[in-house]
Amino acid sequence: MTEPAPVFASGVDNERMNAQLRFLLEVDKLKRVLRQNLLVDGSRRENAAEHSWHLALAARTFAEYAPQGTDIDRVTEMLVLHDIVEIDAGDTYVFDQVNTETQAERERAAADRIFPLLPEDQAERARELWNEFEARDTPEARFARAVDRLAPMLANWHNEGGTWLRFGITRAQVMEKVKLIAEGSEALGAYATALVEDANRRGYFKG
Amino acid sequence: MTEPAPVFASGVDNERMNAQLRFLLEVDKLKRVLRQNLLVDGSRRENAAEHSWHLALAARTFAEYAPQGTDIDRVTEMLVLHDIVEIDAGDTYVFDQVNTETQAERERAAADRIFPLLPEDQAERARELWNEFEARDTPEARFARAVDRLAPMLANWHNEGGTWLRFGITRAQVMEKVKLIAEGSEALGAYATALVEDANRRGYFKG
Repeated sequence: MTEPAPVFASGVDNERMNAQLRFLLEVDKLKRVLRQNLLVDGSRRENAAEHSWHLALAARTFAEYAPQGTDIDRVTEMLVLHDIVEIDAGDTYVFDQVNTETQAERERAAADRIFPLLPEDQAERARELWNEFEARDTPEARFARAVDRLAPMLANWHNEGGTWLRFGITRAQVMEKVKLIAEGSEALGAYATALVEDANRRGYFKG
Repeated sequence: MTEPAPVFASGVDNERMNAQLRFLLEVDKLKRVLRQNLLVDGSRRENAAEHSWHLALAARTFAEYAPQGTDIDRVTEMLVLHDIVEIDAGDTYVFDQVNTETQAERERAAADRIFPLLPEDQAERARELWNEFEARDTPEARFARAVDRLAPMLANWHNEGGTWLRFGITRAQVMEKVKLIAEGSEALGAYATALVEDANRRGYFKG
């Protein structure tokens, strides 16, 4: 745990601000959590912090493809927060069946440790947003998840198969994830389907 | 320029979506733009994409220190977009006087190239938000800039002087930047002032 500088600012609730700083210093570690997929240019693996930034921008850029009435500010907030649990739990590759089984428990434990670094009211809100993202029972959470699933597909296409070929993933396995995209956004689902068909023609899947 | 996959999704304005995809693929390059400051743990230099993510989270966490009525969703959107011009212009170190002189022009040229990759309505909004951030003539832009200035100060403190010592920066030079923080947020300005005093006692500045 990185402790904030021991400074006293006048006119400020220092205890509260220290809790906020402790959280912000802790989450800096997300920049060191590596995902399996590469950057679009293939130069290196993506980290979870820059991935979260890219998703926030993608959600706003694709906002018109969310169901009418979807609160894009809430989607953005959710995406900025959604991967913080990976600081403790690590990134779980979406087709890794063994680790996916323990993922929910590992991530819950991480949420129990990291969000309460914040002042109580802010910790509650962060936890609520993260729970919502995980449960996918609102249009905001489903759209956030759709964007989260689409981004690595774009990277894989631009890396001539990327992690699909590297880990021997089939078209059918990827189509399972396309379903999640379509549940969040009809248009992004249609795009993802077309992308998978094109990737299949190019031999980017196993078999 | 990275071209989107040549796919045709049914029920979608493919030309518009392709423009959005071209923008999102292009801005992936921000993950490769390195800033001078290190991560909080000192392990490597920070890139501009993960920096933007951290700022979006910091702005929301510190929202209560913005002047009353500040639209934090707009601040977040601004921070997610603000560094994209660095894809062409590179990151300009805040105390680099030579490059700071040409910075505005280089960044304007980058904005002229990158934002118009988006469909026209979205390009206009992105440019407007970026102009606002640069002009600092709204509470949102001043608060966004305050958070942007504070973050590398935290990293420097945790790296025992970091870029301050490495580039021979004085306490007076840093206090110029603290002024910008105070203009965006009284409380963050008070904290930054106290942080600089503490850093000064520890010998983290030149002279």
